Amino acid sequence: MTTETSTPAAAAAPEHPGDYVHGYSRTEARRLGDQADTLAELLHAGTAYPAGSQVLEAGCGVGAQTVHLLAASPGVRLTAADLSADSLALARTRVAAQAPAADVIWHHGDLHRLPFPDGSFDHVFLCFVLEHLPDPTAGLAALRRVLRPGGTITVIEGDHGSALFHPESPAARRTVDHLVRLQARAGGDGLLGRRLQPLLTAAGFARVSVRPRTVYADDSRPALVEGFTRRTFVAMVEAVRAEALAAGLTTPEDFDRGVTELRRAAEPGGTFHYTFFKAVAVRP
Amino acid sequence: MTTETSTPAAAAAPEHPGDYVHGYSRTEARRLGDQADTLAELLHAGTAYPAGSQVLEAGCGVGAQTVHLLAASPGVRLTAADLSADSLALARTRVAAQAPAADVIWHHGDLHRLPFPDGSFDHVFLCFVLEHLPDPTAGLAALRRVLRPGGTITVIEGDHGSALFHPESPAARRTVDHLVRLQARAGGDGLLGRRLQPLLTAAGFARVSVRPRTVYADDSRPALVEGFTRRTFVAMVEAVRAEALAAGLTTPEDFDRGVTELRRAAEPGGTFHYTFFKAVAVRP
Repeated sequence: MTTETSTPAAAAAPEHPGDYVHGYSRTEARRLGDQADTLAELLHAGTAYPAGSQVLEAGCGVGAQTVHLLAASPGVRLTAADLSADSLALARTRVAAQAPAADVIWHHGDLHRLPFPDGSFDHVFLCFVLEHLPDPTAGLAALRRVLRPGGTITVIEGDHGSALFHPESPAARRTVDHLVRLQARAGGDGLLGRRLQPLLTAAGFARVSVRPRTVYADDSRPALVEGFTRRTFVAMVEAVRAEALAAGLTTPEDFDRGVTELRRAAEPGGTFHYTFFKAVAVRP
Repeated sequence: MTTETSTPAAAAAPEHPGDYVHGYSRTEARRLGDQADTLAELLHAGTAYPAGSQVLEAGCGVGAQTVHLLAASPGVRLTAADLSADSLALARTRVAAQAPAADVIWHHGDLHRLPFPDGSFDHVFLCFVLEHLPDPTAGLAALRRVLRPGGTITVIEGDHGSALFHPESPAARRTVDHLVRLQARAGGDGLLGRRLQPLLTAAGFARVSVRPRTVYADDSRPALVEGFTRRTFVAMVEAVRAEALAAGLTTPEDFDRGVTELRRAAEPGGTFHYTFFKAVAVRP
């Protein structure tokens, strides 16, 4: 069962969808799907809500995490919210295919102005969302409002500063830094993972517990090299090429050299390391 | 029971003890002890050798890891080797106090030229050693020689590129980079952790398995903030001040500002992340 709601103001004038650093293309949607499948076990382990719980996924995007959330928590009553109608449509299609029996309300709107009463949800989940917000503390505070006292919030974020690759390469490092810089220009923070604990504390949550979830891929794990190093991380960096050039951050030669050298981490003898941060906290 | 052996050539002319980037002071010995106690569970989990095994610890230093190795593997017959007679003396004292019943042969010599027959050991263990070697592949190959076919090697290394701190600070980052640069000048590699897999493969080991072991400390874990962020990582960076100044890498003001800003990671609202890499491989 799926139903749909929308916040009229947000639907009419989405606040900053054009600022989403990774764009909204179909290739991007596929990338996010690959990423989620490879990482699902790592990121979702430990997150399971009781059947009947009222759960909000804030910023569900194309549903890449939604299907894993539903698989780990059968019987929850999920509200999946996103600012982009196009993403929501893809998420609906994905959930219809992978979790047809799930009980989902699709909400088109801004997580800062959700039209739900205080304390509506038992649990809130968001993954790769805060990194795109100009004021993540304000976003978290808005989510705290709709969470019931004693309810939990689970937040997963990456941190591009944790990307370690072998062979090391200054050109590859510069190219990764372009992604961080573009995200900062769009009002986000590609290095947000490391500050989840102070952000949740500042937003009024209690019992904040943050743990790193680290991906490491080398020749001994070819599926992870393909699924994560190449199809997730390198693909994410490659995807900002046009934007990095338009912003005058780099030249085509320099950008392409960085990507070529970054790709060596996915070739024989290469290695790649990346840390996600997963936080769980409680509304007091 | 402890006995002592030494390689005469190495004892007479240690190859590059002066190059050990962290120096050999008593403060440094204490720092290494603090570090090992805080990290012991993280680093040693999964390493336990059967009683009666012939085990070599290559580069035991002041015995910081030796005592944990012995605690996890009671009844092993350990040979602990180091290039520095002073470090070995401290290691003997530490083991005598913490594991008086342990069966240890103390060997003063260079791990590249161990005077033991081929295949002498069932297991080889080394921690924070390869990062100081000009040619880690050669060091690993020399250790492979003294390991019996089917025997295991366990290697633990850090990677200073994995240090993430909040608040982020360019001055702090530069100061960490001085440590990496000084280690490179001394012929070592402070970014070695990420390349353990290709190094062990190149040295002729099989079934190489590398896993990250990540330390993350924030306000919710005050003992780790104190034991790791402040007394291990910041202390390690601070310890190269004189050397960084002598090498002309920085000014006193700039270095001290970097350390001050790095210390914020250990203050309220700060966070710190660091990844160690642990490898296990087999001699074919």
